[in-house]
Amino acid sequence: MSLDKAKLQAFIPLFYLVWSDDLLTQKEFQTLQQFINSQTWLTQKEQKELTAKIDIFNPPSREDINTWYITLQNTIQQNPSIKSLHDLATVLSNHNKNLKGIATQFTKLENDLGILGEEVISEFKTNKNTLTSNLKTNSTFEVNKLTSFLDGAQEPIINKVKEVISRKEFAYETSTDINIYREKVYEWCKILAKENLGNMAYPKKYGGGENMADYFAIMETLSYHDLSLVIKFGVQFGLWGMSVYSLGTAKHHQKYLQDIGSLKLPGCFAMTETHHGSNVKGLETSATYNHKTKTFTIQTPNKNAQKEYIGNAAVHGQMATVFAKLIIDNHDYGVNAFVVPIRDQEGNTLKGITIGDCGHKMGLNGVDNGTISFDNVEIPKENMLDRFASVNEKGEFESPIPSDNRRFFTMLGTLVGGRIGIPRSALAAAKSGLTIAIKYADQRRQFGPEGGSEIPILNYRIHQRRLLPHLAKTYAIHFALQYLTNRFINRTEEEMQEIEALAAGMKSYSTWNTTTVLQECREACGGKGYLSENRIDALKNDTDVYTTFEGDNTVLMQLVAKNRLSEFRKAFGEMGSMGMINYVFESAKTAVSQKNPIATRNTSEEHLLNNEFHLQAFQYREKSILESAAKRIKKLIDNGLEPYDAFNVVQHHMIEVAQAYLERVTLEQFQKATASVEDEALKNTLTKLLQLYALHQIEKNKAWYLEDGYMEPVKTKAIRKTVNQLCWEIRPDAVALVDAFAIPDSCLAAPIAFQ
Amino acid sequence: MSLDKAKLQAFIPLFYLVWSDDLLTQKEFQTLQQFINSQTWLTQKEQKELTAKIDIFNPPSREDINTWYITLQNTIQQNPSIKSLHDLATVLSNHNKNLKGIATQFTKLENDLGILGEEVISEFKTNKNTLTSNLKTNSTFEVNKLTSFLDGAQEPIINKVKEVISRKEFAYETSTDINIYREKVYEWCKILAKENLGNMAYPKKYGGGENMADYFAIMETLSYHDLSLVIKFGVQFGLWGMSVYSLGTAKHHQKYLQDIGSLKLPGCFAMTETHHGSNVKGLETSATYNHKTKTFTIQTPNKNAQKEYIGNAAVHGQMATVFAKLIIDNHDYGVNAFVVPIRDQEGNTLKGITIGDCGHKMGLNGVDNGTISFDNVEIPKENMLDRFASVNEKGEFESPIPSDNRRFFTMLGTLVGGRIGIPRSALAAAKSGLTIAIKYADQRRQFGPEGGSEIPILNYRIHQRRLLPHLAKTYAIHFALQYLTNRFINRTEEEMQEIEALAAGMKSYSTWNTTTVLQECREACGGKGYLSENRIDALKNDTDVYTTFEGDNTVLMQLVAKNRLSEFRKAFGEMGSMGMINYVFESAKTAVSQKNPIATRNTSEEHLLNNEFHLQAFQYREKSILESAAKRIKKLIDNGLEPYDAFNVVQHHMIEVAQAYLERVTLEQFQKATASVEDEALKNTLTKLLQLYALHQIEKNKAWYLEDGYMEPVKTKAIRKTVNQLCWEIRPDAVALVDAFAIPDSCLAAPIAFQ
Repeated sequence: MSLDKAKLQAFIPLFYLVWSDDLLTQKEFQTLQQFINSQTWLTQKEQKELTAKIDIFNPPSREDINTWYITLQNTIQQNPSIKSLHDLATVLSNHNKNLKGIATQFTKLENDLGILGEEVISEFKTNKNTLTSNLKTNSTFEVNKLTSFLDGAQEPIINKVKEVISRKEFAYETSTDINIYREKVYEWCKILAKENLGNMAYPKKYGGGENMADYFAIMETLSYHDLSLVIKFGVQFGLWGMSVYSLGTAKHHQKYLQDIGSLKLPGCFAMTETHHGSNVKGLETSATYNHKTKTFTIQTPNKNAQKEYIGNAAVHGQMATVFAKLIIDNHDYGVNAFVVPIRDQEGNTLKGITIGDCGHKMGLNGVDNGTISFDNVEIPKENMLDRFASVNEKGEFESPIPSDNRRFFTMLGTLVGGRIGIPRSALAAAKSGLTIAIKYADQRRQFGPEGGSEIPILNYRIHQRRLLPHLAKTYAIHFALQYLTNRFINRTEEEMQEIEALAAGMKSYSTWNTTTVLQECREACGGKGYLSENRIDALKNDTDVYTTFEGDNTVLMQLVAKNRLSEFRKAFGEMGSMGMINYVFESAKTAVSQKNPIATRNTSEEHLLNNEFHLQAFQYREKSILESAAKRIKKLIDNGLEPYDAFNVVQHHMIEVAQAYLERVTLEQFQKATASVEDEALKNTLTKLLQLYALHQIEKNKAWYLEDGYMEPVKTKAIRKTVNQLCWEIRPDAVALVDAFAIPDSCLAAPIAFQ
Repeated sequence: MSLDKAKLQAFIPLFYLVWSDDLLTQKEFQTLQQFINSQTWLTQKEQKELTAKIDIFNPPSREDINTWYITLQNTIQQNPSIKSLHDLATVLSNHNKNLKGIATQFTKLENDLGILGEEVISEFKTNKNTLTSNLKTNSTFEVNKLTSFLDGAQEPIINKVKEVISRKEFAYETSTDINIYREKVYEWCKILAKENLGNMAYPKKYGGGENMADYFAIMETLSYHDLSLVIKFGVQFGLWGMSVYSLGTAKHHQKYLQDIGSLKLPGCFAMTETHHGSNVKGLETSATYNHKTKTFTIQTPNKNAQKEYIGNAAVHGQMATVFAKLIIDNHDYGVNAFVVPIRDQEGNTLKGITIGDCGHKMGLNGVDNGTISFDNVEIPKENMLDRFASVNEKGEFESPIPSDNRRFFTMLGTLVGGRIGIPRSALAAAKSGLTIAIKYADQRRQFGPEGGSEIPILNYRIHQRRLLPHLAKTYAIHFALQYLTNRFINRTEEEMQEIEALAAGMKSYSTWNTTTVLQECREACGGKGYLSENRIDALKNDTDVYTTFEGDNTVLMQLVAKNRLSEFRKAFGEMGSMGMINYVFESAKTAVSQKNPIATRNTSEEHLLNNEFHLQAFQYREKSILESAAKRIKKLIDNGLEPYDAFNVVQHHMIEVAQAYLERVTLEQFQKATASVEDEALKNTLTKLLQLYALHQIEKNKAWYLEDGYMEPVKTKAIRKTVNQLCWEIRPDAVALVDAFAIPDSCLAAPIAFQ
């Protein structure tokens, strides 16, 4: 090869680039021509020869491009030190001296073309052992140990439920005909009743298991299967049965509980009315007492007062716990509960009862929701569920709780179990979705280094970001809901309000999480995630209403915040004037220990991964937001706003009050659970997941931390990086972490989870 | 009344509170007792008498409570100056002198009980004219003027489409049987074809309207109706028809276009394979040329290379544009497109073709998606769509674009129209959802000031926050998509890459917005939003896959960011060394004008609502994120990371690069559109909406602005407040703003939107 020929080889990379890179446009042809013409060490003839190769109206042949490609590939592979286009040109030109000293011209050219030399060169390398390619599933702990840890004392009942729902009879119903689906779900419920799963929480003397903890575990485990089944089950044994149990007295228990538990007596929980969903205190259905006949007359006063959305009403229910205003002698004694028959055993609607069908819904179409209207329906006096209020022999109202308001909320308080069952069911659905999406992402390959094989999509950082923080949060919620359940089961009267608020809050926290998780899972599984066979469809649509029922989440969060505010005022008040000083001092101490420039800028890994730092940050946020909300309300009122308006102004702030509280509780429980693990390998993995939960929440709230000055930008930026890193480190364990949920294959069902 | 008696009346508020407030617990009884016993001005007997009233085991009668209530109500209503429990006690006690000077004790008591005196007192007032109650729909502009402005030059075709889809034949199909649904959608498509709506973009000589702008307007307007219809329509006339038009040559146009436009020839667009969705360059289906017979043999080499998710394939398609690797003499010439018959006119599947049915999906069940496999299917040479590549008479490959890579992307580039149709369809779905949710929220009443009537839920700040920023963003996207459409229609070759990136980005931005909007609308409509009759079900489920098809959003966002990065490098490079100085100088100027302490802390309303401030903030963010991403990648590579790994590390950052770009473009277009409005009233309303969009985005990104130092906490806090205030101010216009979409009643259909 002549010297000249070698010299001109320096330009092959440019020819190749301009013709093959789909990002280069016409304008870049000119850029290259100018570049060549500016190389004064080339003769005019040479320049002409070279620019002819990049004439847009005179393209090279496909073979030319291929020859260039092979030349470049060989050169790059034989010279691993080549890093830039200039290096490459130098080698290709046989180290022509004219190329010395014009490296910057080449760099400028790279810029002008909008390319990165290193990237172009790497595409010709055969070494495709990139870090990204090498990452793979490689679990560091024993999956069954984690399963046992998650199940805890409920392991036996969880395994029993899994056995039942894995039976052939529980094969999913795929018909889109809601009549077929409703009957199938009803049949399933009968099997569960037969297995004594429905009456698990009822007293033993009525055939029950007297085991509330097991009951909640059943609700959660059933949720790995069909969610219509769970809701139908919850309506019958939870809402209908537990309303009789909690609001009624011995006579009602004796008469109904056994048959409710065996599903001989299907029933409803008729609270919501068309015009009163969240604001149940405003219910309009009336129960008028007639002392002569010792009966109540149940009446729907207008169309908008019909009972609406009542599960079990459209087809199967024979009885209903009806919430209605008790009227005696034209006096309104507030909302009370009554057992009202609505159908006979043959399923015929009784006189005075009108039932409507809510029809097709976004999901849960195996549940027969309906409307119920009452036209002068008479029921005997004994049908009043009279634990908290009754009509005495003289026909007078009697109650140990004189205030109607307070009595009503006491009644509602006994029904708080529903706000534990639903978030636990939501949790199971999130676990199912994550299992499907993570197992798919571990197998599904798409793209890869140029010329290398395609890599699992879970190796992509963005895919890890989409799924793994959700996995961490779902684990966190698991432990928080365990805690809520324990608090509820072992409650004292004095703790009830706190537990009610916690339940309302965790219901919102968990169900919103599930909605978000399943949306991400759907998208992360692409078109496959959209096919009904892969079950994200059902999981997503069935749970979508979880954020609404048992109380709209947004409304519940306001209640939680109000409770926190009240608690805050009490805590503040009790301190007295000395306490005030202490409070300020405490704040000052916080400022010293947490808000000093060293802490707010501390980006050491040790610090960022530290449990205590996480908890302090969560607590600090909880306390500060609460305090600022209280002050803001006070200030608005002091400035003359009606309190009602003042609370409206801070509604958005109140949501944050509740959120910060729930996040702190959840972190605390995840930390406690992790600390209790003895197995080292397991503890290590859970610790990483815990750190990811903690830091991801802080990252989500970082604007608040920056506004407050609790963290400096250098720290929030370091946290973002650490979140990325934790995702990367957890990725090899991701499949094991979802395997630990031990969801039966037949329930998971999605073909994409079993590739 | 004796003096003593009056004195004791001071304690009535406390009795009432403790017995009626459901937030007070046992502990507070003790608190009250202690308070009473600490009042040394009371005799022991009096103390005893008083504490007896708050003995938890000896409740008062219901009548007692009622008497207290009436006493308090009368007192408060007759003395409007009462603000605190102490004021109240003073008046009740007939201004007993002993109460003087113990106001702080009462305040402490309020704290101990966790209550707010003002709130308690306000509940007894009859003046329920709170600001919150008084807010109502009261539009400030003429709705039809806004409709005309939104529709612009496409008003006639939009009105025509609305007329067609309002016809009786277009009543929604409610069957859950997908066979019935698919046939109904097909029938609808035939009507649209007859109305010459399908062929709107085709040349006039093949029966078309040669009007691309109208075609996109049709896609968008049809989306007010059934979304399966839109997708089926888009598959037939857009994907199938436009692939023949854009990739084929005159012979194909002559042979097919007329029949495609009239729906005589239903067809498919067969690109995606089971194992290649996003990474279409890796398609495995092959088309092998046989020079002897002048035919291609189409072959599916393995199960995972079957064409998947192909619209129109499962039932109706007779032809398909099939993307396959062209093989000549064992050489692979990259992916090209071929017209392949799959069914005869009677609907029988042709020899060598195997069709599967994707079955039930989360939504779009009126579209018959299927799989197609080819077993040695022979097609004539002329069936190659040969605009960009062909096989010549000698049986050799020929193309004006020598690089296979570049040719493939050029082919794809011609199909970018789909990435305009989908985001516009998504926009219409978001408009439908917002119309339903806002009209419902304007009518639905729930809760209200104690004793006052219930108020529309749209009067709640939190409900405004949930819906109105989404309304503003949806308007913003409307204008951005108008801009994208215009750019696309008037494109030059040179601009193509920028427009492709913009389309990919706006497709993601709009479809993600729709997913978020519809989720919020569902929740904001509570249980009613879950009923299929209210249509959020269909809107949500049908559009959920929009974030996936025409390219997974996350993947598209990476492409957008790569394009921005390339543009950035060019801009940077072109400046040369002198430019570098200018660039730094520019940054310095920015620092002076935008990042000085006065600007970063400026919280004046005038400044916060200023267009220029918004645009500068968006531009600054866009530029800074892009620059930092470029620097980060460079640094990672300089530190020895493989470029492939480096790009993986910054994927999350890249999403933000794309996001910031799209937000800036969207804001710019919304600003330009608003500036062009002449009607003052309309301009005022749109300006508020524009400000809400701008500030809500800044609020969403405030962590970034704080980290960067572009804003100080005092400013981001003021922005949050301004967002709340704008929501409040826009609320009376909210219904008019959705009415302006002028969605036909029969399409909106949701009963809750028409109460």
